[in-house]
Amino acid sequence: MTDDLQTSPRWVYDFEDLAAATAAVGGDWDAVRGLLGGKGANLADMAAIGIPVPPGFTVTTEACIAYAERNELPDGLWEEVRSAVAQLEATSGKTFGGSETPLIVAVRSGAKFSMPGMMDTVLNVGLNDAVAATMIERTGDARFVNDSYRRLLQMFGSIVLGVDPSHFERVLHETRAENGVGSDNDLDAAALATLTERFRALISEFGSQPFPQDPEEQLRLATEAVFGSWHSQRAHDYREASGIDHDLGTAVNVVSMVFGNLGATSGTGVAMSRDGTTGVPVIEGDYLMNAQGEDVVDGSRPTIPLDRLATDSPECAAELGRIAKQLELHHRDMQDIEFTIEDGRLWLLQTRNGKRTAQAAVRIAVDMANEGLITREEAVQRVTPAQVDFFLHPQFSETELASRTPLAYGLNVSPGAAVGVAVFDPDIAVRWADQGRSVILVRQETKPDDVHGMLAAVGILTSSGGRTSHAALVARQFGKPAVTGAQDLVIDLQQRHLSIGNTIIEEGEWISIDGTTGTIYDGDVPTVDPDLSNDHLAMLLSWADDIRTLGVRANADDPVEAARARRHGAEGIGLCRTEHMFFAPDRLPIVQQMITAPTVGEQREAIEALLAPQRADFRGLFEVMDGLPVIIRLLDPPLHEFLPSGTELHHTISDLQIRLSHATDLATIESLVRELNETTTMLDRVDALSESNPMLGLRGVRLANRIPDLTRMQARAVVEAAVEVIRAGGNPMPEVMVPLVGIDRELKRQREIIEQVVAEVRAETGVEVHLPIGTMIEVPRAALTSKAIAAHADFISFGTNDLTQTTYAISRDDAESAFLLDYLNDGLLDANPFASIDPEGVGQLMQIGLDGARSTKPGLTAGVCGEHGGDPASIALCHEMGLDYVSCSAYRVPVARLAAAHARLA
Amino acid sequence: MTDDLQTSPRWVYDFEDLAAATAAVGGDWDAVRGLLGGKGANLADMAAIGIPVPPGFTVTTEACIAYAERNELPDGLWEEVRSAVAQLEATSGKTFGGSETPLIVAVRSGAKFSMPGMMDTVLNVGLNDAVAATMIERTGDARFVNDSYRRLLQMFGSIVLGVDPSHFERVLHETRAENGVGSDNDLDAAALATLTERFRALISEFGSQPFPQDPEEQLRLATEAVFGSWHSQRAHDYREASGIDHDLGTAVNVVSMVFGNLGATSGTGVAMSRDGTTGVPVIEGDYLMNAQGEDVVDGSRPTIPLDRLATDSPECAAELGRIAKQLELHHRDMQDIEFTIEDGRLWLLQTRNGKRTAQAAVRIAVDMANEGLITREEAVQRVTPAQVDFFLHPQFSETELASRTPLAYGLNVSPGAAVGVAVFDPDIAVRWADQGRSVILVRQETKPDDVHGMLAAVGILTSSGGRTSHAALVARQFGKPAVTGAQDLVIDLQQRHLSIGNTIIEEGEWISIDGTTGTIYDGDVPTVDPDLSNDHLAMLLSWADDIRTLGVRANADDPVEAARARRHGAEGIGLCRTEHMFFAPDRLPIVQQMITAPTVGEQREAIEALLAPQRADFRGLFEVMDGLPVIIRLLDPPLHEFLPSGTELHHTISDLQIRLSHATDLATIESLVRELNETTTMLDRVDALSESNPMLGLRGVRLANRIPDLTRMQARAVVEAAVEVIRAGGNPMPEVMVPLVGIDRELKRQREIIEQVVAEVRAETGVEVHLPIGTMIEVPRAALTSKAIAAHADFISFGTNDLTQTTYAISRDDAESAFLLDYLNDGLLDANPFASIDPEGVGQLMQIGLDGARSTKPGLTAGVCGEHGGDPASIALCHEMGLDYVSCSAYRVPVARLAAAHARLA
Repeated sequence: MTDDLQTSPRWVYDFEDLAAATAAVGGDWDAVRGLLGGKGANLADMAAIGIPVPPGFTVTTEACIAYAERNELPDGLWEEVRSAVAQLEATSGKTFGGSETPLIVAVRSGAKFSMPGMMDTVLNVGLNDAVAATMIERTGDARFVNDSYRRLLQMFGSIVLGVDPSHFERVLHETRAENGVGSDNDLDAAALATLTERFRALISEFGSQPFPQDPEEQLRLATEAVFGSWHSQRAHDYREASGIDHDLGTAVNVVSMVFGNLGATSGTGVAMSRDGTTGVPVIEGDYLMNAQGEDVVDGSRPTIPLDRLATDSPECAAELGRIAKQLELHHRDMQDIEFTIEDGRLWLLQTRNGKRTAQAAVRIAVDMANEGLITREEAVQRVTPAQVDFFLHPQFSETELASRTPLAYGLNVSPGAAVGVAVFDPDIAVRWADQGRSVILVRQETKPDDVHGMLAAVGILTSSGGRTSHAALVARQFGKPAVTGAQDLVIDLQQRHLSIGNTIIEEGEWISIDGTTGTIYDGDVPTVDPDLSNDHLAMLLSWADDIRTLGVRANADDPVEAARARRHGAEGIGLCRTEHMFFAPDRLPIVQQMITAPTVGEQREAIEALLAPQRADFRGLFEVMDGLPVIIRLLDPPLHEFLPSGTELHHTISDLQIRLSHATDLATIESLVRELNETTTMLDRVDALSESNPMLGLRGVRLANRIPDLTRMQARAVVEAAVEVIRAGGNPMPEVMVPLVGIDRELKRQREIIEQVVAEVRAETGVEVHLPIGTMIEVPRAALTSKAIAAHADFISFGTNDLTQTTYAISRDDAESAFLLDYLNDGLLDANPFASIDPEGVGQLMQIGLDGARSTKPGLTAGVCGEHGGDPASIALCHEMGLDYVSCSAYRVPVARLAAAHARLA
Repeated sequence: MTDDLQTSPRWVYDFEDLAAATAAVGGDWDAVRGLLGGKGANLADMAAIGIPVPPGFTVTTEACIAYAERNELPDGLWEEVRSAVAQLEATSGKTFGGSETPLIVAVRSGAKFSMPGMMDTVLNVGLNDAVAATMIERTGDARFVNDSYRRLLQMFGSIVLGVDPSHFERVLHETRAENGVGSDNDLDAAALATLTERFRALISEFGSQPFPQDPEEQLRLATEAVFGSWHSQRAHDYREASGIDHDLGTAVNVVSMVFGNLGATSGTGVAMSRDGTTGVPVIEGDYLMNAQGEDVVDGSRPTIPLDRLATDSPECAAELGRIAKQLELHHRDMQDIEFTIEDGRLWLLQTRNGKRTAQAAVRIAVDMANEGLITREEAVQRVTPAQVDFFLHPQFSETELASRTPLAYGLNVSPGAAVGVAVFDPDIAVRWADQGRSVILVRQETKPDDVHGMLAAVGILTSSGGRTSHAALVARQFGKPAVTGAQDLVIDLQQRHLSIGNTIIEEGEWISIDGTTGTIYDGDVPTVDPDLSNDHLAMLLSWADDIRTLGVRANADDPVEAARARRHGAEGIGLCRTEHMFFAPDRLPIVQQMITAPTVGEQREAIEALLAPQRADFRGLFEVMDGLPVIIRLLDPPLHEFLPSGTELHHTISDLQIRLSHATDLATIESLVRELNETTTMLDRVDALSESNPMLGLRGVRLANRIPDLTRMQARAVVEAAVEVIRAGGNPMPEVMVPLVGIDRELKRQREIIEQVVAEVRAETGVEVHLPIGTMIEVPRAALTSKAIAAHADFISFGTNDLTQTTYAISRDDAESAFLLDYLNDGLLDANPFASIDPEGVGQLMQIGLDGARSTKPGLTAGVCGEHGGDPASIALCHEMGLDYVSCSAYRVPVARLAAAHARLA
């Protein structure tokens, strides 16, 4: 036994003894937290820098572990506790169990990682009948003493002695009833005195033993109970869910009670060293005089703003201000402080880094960097991409959401809150929007035909379609909040309403969607507007720009979007999807003409008719992006996307046939027959173009090789637009990108066609346009054979949407509604690979592609232009991989700038 | 000049001087061929082993190159030619230009690689007016001499002196007319004499110079002309097309003319050292006495079978037999020989490896190995996989095909010839086949519903669908010849006929298809039956088995197929597609019930109803494959494949609606409404299951994870079947394979389910079934993350069909009809990646997958079970890669066994 004692560790550290604890674990702060727990380490740390914390000591986590092993306190521990208590008594001049100036302590759990509400705490240990009587005598506040004593009995009884808490609740209820009051706070001293007696009786009846009057026994039993609570089922479950190691154990902090409710010179409050909502560098908070901690937060009394403390207690106010600054300096971050004033003396009970809004986070980071408190790198790291994202979209007020039940959930595909009346038709959306109404366009899924309605709406909601469905893509592109794939939502176009479970929302009734979380609410939920012109944000992002090495470009298809992208800091257009131009109402008929042309000649005519509008499109882009690269991707989708769907046509034919079978007059019959023939012809064409797997079909470079005139037209439009801009004194930097290449010769052939066009235009105009020609790497074979493909490419760009689809063999839209969400729920997948690049599979393939391409052309420019370009984790991966830039929707550009800086600093 | 002469190479080698030529190039036979050309080297080689070849010499290819550089014969060359001619004169006792016994020579081109018909030859050089006159006098055969002379004039005039050949043709035409004959052979001596005069006049008029009477000048000009012909446009184009180096040059062979037409003791013929049709080891051939070479081949006189030569010229016959054996020994292969007998003396003009039929190739290879002439390895290498394939299918007679024009072409998806009456409906196919008629099932594309008709048919023809369409897969599986994707073919089901261009074939009319070439013929083309029980083939394949290290298994779904596979030498079943069992007429309704079940309970009932039939399926397989592994793949296709198509249902609904709108009596209306409701419900279900890209959708392991009961049922059927076979004294070796895995946890979860079933059955029956569990590697991510996946796999099998689709992002069916064929035609692709594994992309991915998996589990069994398993090039790739086996359709097993041996020997 003697040997054991000699080799056993030290079990107890006084708050004033941080140095010894630090030395015991070798000086590592993380290890100190491991030994003393978070709360104990924090209190010791404050004590070490001279901040007044209530005297006390910590029983280490190692003691907890040793206790669990033998189910009894380890040898020597109690001797150390006794001596620590003696030390407390000496310091405070109070006596534990003494009736003159009694030492009352709180026994608080404190594990290395915070486990809010999971572990037990017993307050007011050291009170007993004798001490209570003396205190009443001395303070004259029988209500306070009795209340403290009944709380001890209640906590001690349930936590330490195993009395079912419902017994105490029942007696409390009876007492309130007997006294005719509704709240425990309204019980008077006498009622509370009776309560202590009844609680003691309850303990005697149901507890494992009667309530111990000996304070030391109270302390020992409470300590053991806290240690035991580490192994409670709920604590175990919490750790399981949070990934906290079960072997860490908890420390026990024995803290002298300080009382904020000892009269007018006492009080308690919370303070933030800066404004947590706005970030303004002024201490703020709430307090109450003559009150206990929970009174400030439970709303039972109206709190007083902290700036009044200068009146109530000028010295304490000054000291608190000084301490807040000191703690900020010490922790190099904004602090959230709990304090108590006991009889004019200020005690700090806790400090931690304060929670803050996105706006405050940005301002505090920037201010602190400007104050020299942290570096600019740290400031950039302190702000999360999600916080920057918040700046760009309105959000629902959190207080509002607290009181509302979501109607349903879908995919959070485009962030921000939107509130409007539900509309099921794009034309109605436009009409109502023109009338000044906010509308949410609700569709089963959207199509290119719906875009005018989507633009008119403030938000988009679909019942099917995934993270990269048409609705999602367009919404992100235009920064419209959107929720897709909300499967519980049923749209009834006959009844003109939508139903979610039992809730029916008629067209024209209010609905609210949160694209940040994917949540749908009934009615109009108030929103908080974003602060887009935030100087602090601009400064932070400029620092991010200085730090990052990864470029940030935008995906944009028209001058308006491009201008927005440039305003948001995009360094070029990484992807202009020319097909979006083809869907414009003035182009679509020509495109359909091209597709349905019965002869090559008529097809060529239609293609040529597209030249002038395409040239105008590109000119607009080049003007807006003057001096910055603009990558134009050749037409990508399969042709049938430009035609009506087969199902639609089947329905039309069915309708026409029925009408025809009932028609009697000749004119009607003739007209119906004509319409039927036209529809049937269109259906034949649609059938001929239909593919069982269009994703893997005739599109991209395959289409370009089948209809080389399309490439010629698009290349000519690009080059001629550049000539016009050059002649007007501009500096256009066009690049052309070929989609879906999987075979080096595909690119070689397209390159020949494009180079020929460049030469032709040079000959015709005498203007030399420099036109780099590159390719998407978006099918696995392109990545695998990039060595050969790069020989024909001036740049490459990873199309991670398609690459993810083919690498997983998962059709994104089908899967996100069919099984991908199940996979995420069931734990078969940790993350949605369409939201964040899968590093093991897709990422590996990208690295093979990048390395192969650069083995042929060292330093070849390579980027990413999939939807992943705006995802912070994907951006980090792209940075590590050695890519040159990411390209994302204009609205994500600020987020990407910050994330790229984070990646560099990681 | 003197220095030049001293360092210049030797330009001329006598046929008797092979040793010197060999020494000059360092002893390498390839280099000798390079120097002397193929013909020159061959003649010198025969001379060297004592075979009588006409005396002569070769002017080297180096001389040709030197000539081209300076456009004149190099210094010293002509002196060497002169001395070689002198040598010829000395050997033969004849004089070049001499009138007594004149030396007449042929000047023949001869490049390193044969370029048939591309290069020039001048015969009868050395003839002139004086020589001709003397020869007539001496031989008394004026017709022969004049004919030889006019041939010289004609060839020399057009080839050497640049006279347009049409001039000679015109004069020949006039002469024939004047003499009232139809053929040049019918011109008499006088007419030919006149012709020589008119030809000389033509040359004087149109030639670059008059015809030179000096034989040496003839020889020099002819030599230069042959050298020049190397650079002719047509020779250049031929080399371009054949990949022959333009710098090689041609040699010139100056060969003493020997005449087979000098009377009854002269003759000429061709011989094969063994029978080229059957391979029987007896010399065979054709000859004519008193004839020239072309008379034997041009069909102007009926030839005599070689066995008669023993009568006509016993000595020559014996010598020819001896020489044929000698040449076989020398070349270690069957020889194709040209010979001439001049006045009782046998001369060999040429020998080369003989062409042979597939049957002969096998027999000759096996015989030669058994004779000790070649090794068994060489015998195996001498036979191509295509020749083995030929054995397994009937083929069209080649002579028949020569006279027929193909109607159209499609994809050659399943080899063999098939002849039958066209049938457009599987039910009619069965009915007519039952009546004993041969039918070809002609469909736009086939579906599982059509299988009974496909089985009844002798061949299958579709107008759409690719190399791996349903039609192609089923056809290969059952060894039915098939042509798919014949796009020119239009089936009119109203008119009950098919049209190809202007040809109309009514249902019931004859049509012939060649699945080996993809060709379609009108009418019934006679076929040649295969010799399936060929002892020589069996012996050859057993040698191949001894050589190969790569295993060969078969893809088979039922006991009949499995038995066939075993007979063909399969070492196990590499892939049993359980879905094929689900399409059986007695199962399909249960499967549809399972899919459309409104509750989980009803779904489970339907699944349980499938257990007994599945168990019976597997039991049959295990019995047939007793002692060999049988890999059962879990259900793979998306569920909608088991339901009618949406388009079909739309049409039905449309029909019903029209009928309903005209119906008047209540009973009809009620019945129509009921039918309409049922069809609409089915359409809703089909719509709900429809996916935009089913290939990338809810199938394989994704389906298995959604409906774990399916896996449970299938695993139980496998294990219970194995228990039954074990109890009956058998040795079943079942394995279970999970399809479409892309994420390691997908496999882990399925493995848990299957292992649980194994344990349950063990507990229930007390029988221990060893059940390895593996996975397909058929999506890129599975290959990329095989390291993690292999942790849960007892074996892996590459599904190269799907892997090719996703690696290329090409849907095989869509692509093979849409653009893949264009790509092959346009040279964007060299080979169809669905026919032969793409080594750069898919192959690379497979290697990554294999290496990754074996890094986790060294020696893990890995195979291929895609359609590529029967393709020789793919088999070679699999062997190199280090795979353990390939699995292909039963009919391809012999081909695969041979190809695997080839791969080992490569």
